[in-house]
Amino acid sequence: MMDCKKALTEAAGDMEKAVVILRKKGAATAQKKATRVTSEGSVASYIHAGGKIGVLVEVNCESDFVARTEDFKELVHDIAMHITASDPKYVRKEDVTPSDFAREKEIFLDQAIRSGKPANIAEKMVAGKMEKFYEEVCLLEQPFIKDQTITIAQLIAAKIGKLGENIAVRRFARFKVGDVGETVAVTKPADPKPEGE
Amino acid sequence: MMDCKKALTEAAGDMEKAVVILRKKGAATAQKKATRVTSEGSVASYIHAGGKIGVLVEVNCESDFVARTEDFKELVHDIAMHITASDPKYVRKEDVTPSDFAREKEIFLDQAIRSGKPANIAEKMVAGKMEKFYEEVCLLEQPFIKDQTITIAQLIAAKIGKLGENIAVRRFARFKVGDVGETVAVTKPADPKPEGE
Repeated sequence: MMDCKKALTEAAGDMEKAVVILRKKGAATAQKKATRVTSEGSVASYIHAGGKIGVLVEVNCESDFVARTEDFKELVHDIAMHITASDPKYVRKEDVTPSDFAREKEIFLDQAIRSGKPANIAEKMVAGKMEKFYEEVCLLEQPFIKDQTITIAQLIAAKIGKLGENIAVRRFARFKVGDVGETVAVTKPADPKPEGE
Repeated sequence: MMDCKKALTEAAGDMEKAVVILRKKGAATAQKKATRVTSEGSVASYIHAGGKIGVLVEVNCESDFVARTEDFKELVHDIAMHITASDPKYVRKEDVTPSDFAREKEIFLDQAIRSGKPANIAEKMVAGKMEKFYEEVCLLEQPFIKDQTITIAQLIAAKIGKLGENIAVRRFARFKVGDVGETVAVTKPADPKPEGE
């Protein structure tokens, strides 16, 4: 765990850099664990504003033993609270459907072109905005509400390092009283790859 | 409220009969209220089996005042607990999609015909089974887990009578750790009809 924290600090919160650092140190636990199957875990909820907003979230790990630890429960609680406050629409970038992506991109491109930018500049602007889009709508890309220097993905990576098991957000639902729509986000667990170890 | 309870008892739990009785008594509150818009209410959750099953439910009423009453909170809690235990797939009969209905019907019809029944008898058997199907999969049709003599619809009708506002289950989600699928049921509020009163 200390390795992971140190590496994240060293990498100024950039998880990919941190993984490189950890690998060099021969302790890339999170990276290795990330391919392992998660079928245990916990369902938790968070109710906000006197019952006006509610979130249900399932977070998976590899064993019921880990699911019952205070560390895991704390993570699940934090994620439920985060979703309540930050209103993500998807779990991962990969869950954004091509049509959702295309719709957003078209809006941004239209805005950029209307503002009179040449096509090549407009394209670059849109690319930047689409990165921002992921950060705004994907749970794992969002800055953690209780510590904006890390993303939810990094929060989870730290727990993976600490608990020694792969951990993944499986699905969540967010209802707000009176809202026409509701958010229901489901992600498929990544196919386990052969680890060769 | 006492009127509603008495009427339900008199009608042996049959809501339609109870409404007839109440109407005769000039107190068919539930019937009248059922067309009114519900945009207030509460989101509540129920977590079962040490975090292995969780439910999030939104129940609407007409005013925040009613949403904050103990009676309303009790209803929402009871419904969340009921969904956790009884695993409904839809809110109302009307929410069963034609394709779901057709698939179930085909299975039942196939079973009836294989058992060697003539077509007219098979049709009747299927009609009966489809009634049972609604009772099994639609929240409002299910017998209430804490009092099997009434359905959830009747439980709600009693509260409508007591609180004097229309009440409707808007949506729910039910996650079970490790399950491939999840239940997300959303119902549209009925269009308010002119009441002429």
